Amino acid sequence: MAHPCAIVIFGASGDLSKLKLVPAVYEMFSHGLLPDSFVLVGYARSTHKDREKKIPWTDEEYRKDCYDAIKAARGKKGVDEKLWAKMVNNIYYIAGQYDSAEDHARLAKRLLELDKTHDTAGNRLFYISTPPEAFEPIISRLGEREVRHENGPGWSRLIIEKPFGTSLATAKALNQLLYKSWKEEQIFRIDHYLGKETVQNLMVLRFANSIFEPIWNYKYIDHIQITVSETLSADDRVGYYDKSGALRDMIQNHIFQLMALVAMEPPAALDAQSIRDEKVKVYKSIRPLRGARFDHMAVRGQYGPGEYLKKGQKAPTKGYAAAAKERGIDSTVTETFAAVKLYIDNWRWSGMPFYIRTGKCLPEKLSEVVVRFRGAPQTLFQKQCETAVYPNDLIVRIQPEEGLSWRLNGKVPGGAMNIKSVALDFLYKSAFNVEAPEAYERLIGDAVEGDQTLFIRGDEAEAAWSVLDPVVDAWANDKSPPQQYQPGSWGPKKSFDLIENDGRRWMYSTGEVEPVIACSL
Amino acid sequence: MAHPCAIVIFGASGDLSKLKLVPAVYEMFSHGLLPDSFVLVGYARSTHKDREKKIPWTDEEYRKDCYDAIKAARGKKGVDEKLWAKMVNNIYYIAGQYDSAEDHARLAKRLLELDKTHDTAGNRLFYISTPPEAFEPIISRLGEREVRHENGPGWSRLIIEKPFGTSLATAKALNQLLYKSWKEEQIFRIDHYLGKETVQNLMVLRFANSIFEPIWNYKYIDHIQITVSETLSADDRVGYYDKSGALRDMIQNHIFQLMALVAMEPPAALDAQSIRDEKVKVYKSIRPLRGARFDHMAVRGQYGPGEYLKKGQKAPTKGYAAAAKERGIDSTVTETFAAVKLYIDNWRWSGMPFYIRTGKCLPEKLSEVVVRFRGAPQTLFQKQCETAVYPNDLIVRIQPEEGLSWRLNGKVPGGAMNIKSVALDFLYKSAFNVEAPEAYERLIGDAVEGDQTLFIRGDEAEAAWSVLDPVVDAWANDKSPPQQYQPGSWGPKKSFDLIENDGRRWMYSTGEVEPVIACSL
Repeated sequence: MAHPCAIVIFGASGDLSKLKLVPAVYEMFSHGLLPDSFVLVGYARSTHKDREKKIPWTDEEYRKDCYDAIKAARGKKGVDEKLWAKMVNNIYYIAGQYDSAEDHARLAKRLLELDKTHDTAGNRLFYISTPPEAFEPIISRLGEREVRHENGPGWSRLIIEKPFGTSLATAKALNQLLYKSWKEEQIFRIDHYLGKETVQNLMVLRFANSIFEPIWNYKYIDHIQITVSETLSADDRVGYYDKSGALRDMIQNHIFQLMALVAMEPPAALDAQSIRDEKVKVYKSIRPLRGARFDHMAVRGQYGPGEYLKKGQKAPTKGYAAAAKERGIDSTVTETFAAVKLYIDNWRWSGMPFYIRTGKCLPEKLSEVVVRFRGAPQTLFQKQCETAVYPNDLIVRIQPEEGLSWRLNGKVPGGAMNIKSVALDFLYKSAFNVEAPEAYERLIGDAVEGDQTLFIRGDEAEAAWSVLDPVVDAWANDKSPPQQYQPGSWGPKKSFDLIENDGRRWMYSTGEVEPVIACSL
Repeated sequence: MAHPCAIVIFGASGDLSKLKLVPAVYEMFSHGLLPDSFVLVGYARSTHKDREKKIPWTDEEYRKDCYDAIKAARGKKGVDEKLWAKMVNNIYYIAGQYDSAEDHARLAKRLLELDKTHDTAGNRLFYISTPPEAFEPIISRLGEREVRHENGPGWSRLIIEKPFGTSLATAKALNQLLYKSWKEEQIFRIDHYLGKETVQNLMVLRFANSIFEPIWNYKYIDHIQITVSETLSADDRVGYYDKSGALRDMIQNHIFQLMALVAMEPPAALDAQSIRDEKVKVYKSIRPLRGARFDHMAVRGQYGPGEYLKKGQKAPTKGYAAAAKERGIDSTVTETFAAVKLYIDNWRWSGMPFYIRTGKCLPEKLSEVVVRFRGAPQTLFQKQCETAVYPNDLIVRIQPEEGLSWRLNGKVPGGAMNIKSVALDFLYKSAFNVEAPEAYERLIGDAVEGDQTLFIRGDEAEAAWSVLDPVVDAWANDKSPPQQYQPGSWGPKKSFDLIENDGRRWMYSTGEVEPVIACSL
């Protein structure tokens, strides 16, 4: 049963709200994940309209904005006008400062009124979708009301967007701030990667199939590599990006979540506590990224001048450093590319490396986990083959096409013993002939239900930061510029050294040719 | 390099020769597996034409017959007339009795002449494609010449079609006869199943991929089942079939070969000796099919009256016993269906059953090996699921579509935790976009090359008979009729009991519904 509630979006005029959150609320309503007795309340400090018209936004204007956002998100599918007619009167807007107790009181009063008119039962889901500077005032103001039980007579929950701090210290500070007035079970730290089907399927794959667990360890797996690549540059977002960088923007959250789900032990149950306990154990088992070998464990890069892909078209960039300079940042060491090699020092993964990388201006937009198994003993085929038989890969692709692919070796039909790597593919879309729900729809739905399984727990965020803090520190203190890489390439040379010095290679490398082994008996 | 040689087919007027052997020789020639310096010599005792015209067949008549056979086999592809023009003059015919030393001398003389005109280098490949009654005279007459080195100045090899005996004693007798004048390396016992791509791919699959070996044993596999089913009845072939039966016709050869390749240990090399050594070890490790539990290990059936599928159309049958009666066999206990449960008592397969079955008048024509893995522990999903999660299957399909299929469990897209069995398929034809060569083309080519890897060794045939001899004896001595089954069903009830009493089930059962597990979090 869908729960009655008010969903309050802080940062209602922001991109995330328009691109993802409001469309997700529409889809939830359309799929019955929200009852008629819900309201959506946009809360924002200012909008472009404010700036132009110098007047507060009205409910009507916000509704129009929501309609446009839903229409844009649904593309060819269009808006179901009948559904919209039912939904539109459940949408409200409040203009307010994030740290004004008075404005928050106005919000609270409005929500109580809406409880009466819309039967929202006093339940509140506060979605903090603002720049990080606004986290503290919003959490504090809402928190003051929460400790006085003034947010609503039902349940109150917070959804917070990343970043959950920018280091271990700031992550701890953020948690301390939250815990002053909120219980962990009220806090939903969102990482939209966890809302993706393939990511959730990782658990089903590993634990509902018997064939994986026996070979899911260092004895049979040679290494695991995770690539989350973007084609876009950071040129237009230097202001935000220069304070973040690839490590904070991608690795600490999305990639670490993927890694944890791949690496964790089977949980005792599929509930939030059991699963998150296991993820924390993974982070705690990671060998510290410090010491003399640091440069062989973590590599950063910055894209130089050249061409990158923007919506499929080549676009020029002067390079990240030049773009930053134009925006007043004279010398930046912020990484637009990061690669890290990790060891999880437990019984399952002892001595087996995880290689992860992410970056801007790369040749393809993709997110995938490659589990590369050890090769078969070469004795049998080496007499006939000039080169080694290609090892088996299990590829879990999160985007662009959610799916699975097994790369196995098969015999090429014909008299000779020719062996070729063949792929057994499973595509979500074609297999189930349904579209997977958008990550945000799934996650907001879970928050409304009170299910925290797919959200980051406080200690989990801190544990992830504990791993990366030495890298953050080392890179902040090293003022020599990151190694440059060509936009449209797979990153700086050092990132190739990182894996190739171990006798291994990235799944995707510029100009790579798929090895096909031909060997005749 | 293709070897010059003469290929002599004994039984040139028989079905196998026309349907498979002559077309295979054409394909070999077209694919460069036979050089210009080859001849095909048909040898037969009599033909329908003989019987009508009372004259020996001529080279010209035989060539016309070969052309028709090739044309029929190639269907829409038609005959390459240019190629045929090159090939036709390499084809000859000799009419002779199988046991006449004089006729054999005539053959030998002709072959020596052809060595001169066609540069066939004195190499001889004798293909015995006759009813089993003719084996002895042909092998003896050829053998007498062989010990006197009179078959040809090059190499001489024998290809023999099944049956390699009808029991352990007769198999031994056949081997003794062969060994009187032939060495094992000259003897090519053919089983066309070994010429099929999927069957050869079993070895590549198992030994060129690292993911299978660790889980390829009783610890992770629940059981293995092999089904080779035919839709056709035996009504028109009672004369032959009643002396054979399903056990001899299918299990002792085709199915046992599949089982041996699935079950064998990794060979030390991919050569004939190493691979056949391992197959023999499998047979020698099979627990004897005797004793009080015999009825729980081996089941026979006979189809009764009803309808079966003949070229996709329903056709009536009076039942096997009635068909036999019409042909003068008053009471027959010959099985048209056989199912056997086997244990391979070695370290790999200890205590894990193999279930095999074959029969006539079944609902589908298919040959496949199903490796059913043990289920995953149910703890995780049982709280959400009403029934157990379906176990993983690896299906190796030999026909109709050669390929592989992994059945794994995946998450159904959507908010709930619904699990469904999904298939990752690999089809030979579409993956490689080439047609696999016909089994006979491959195998005759190997015999010309002298490669015995895909042929049955003498001790291998005997070892397979050793396993089945107790069943042969028991069924011959038990004059009570086999259990009847409905044509178009999956066999007699006892064959279901055979597996279901162990808490397992056949992959295909009449009216089976694929289980789909829906369970919500």
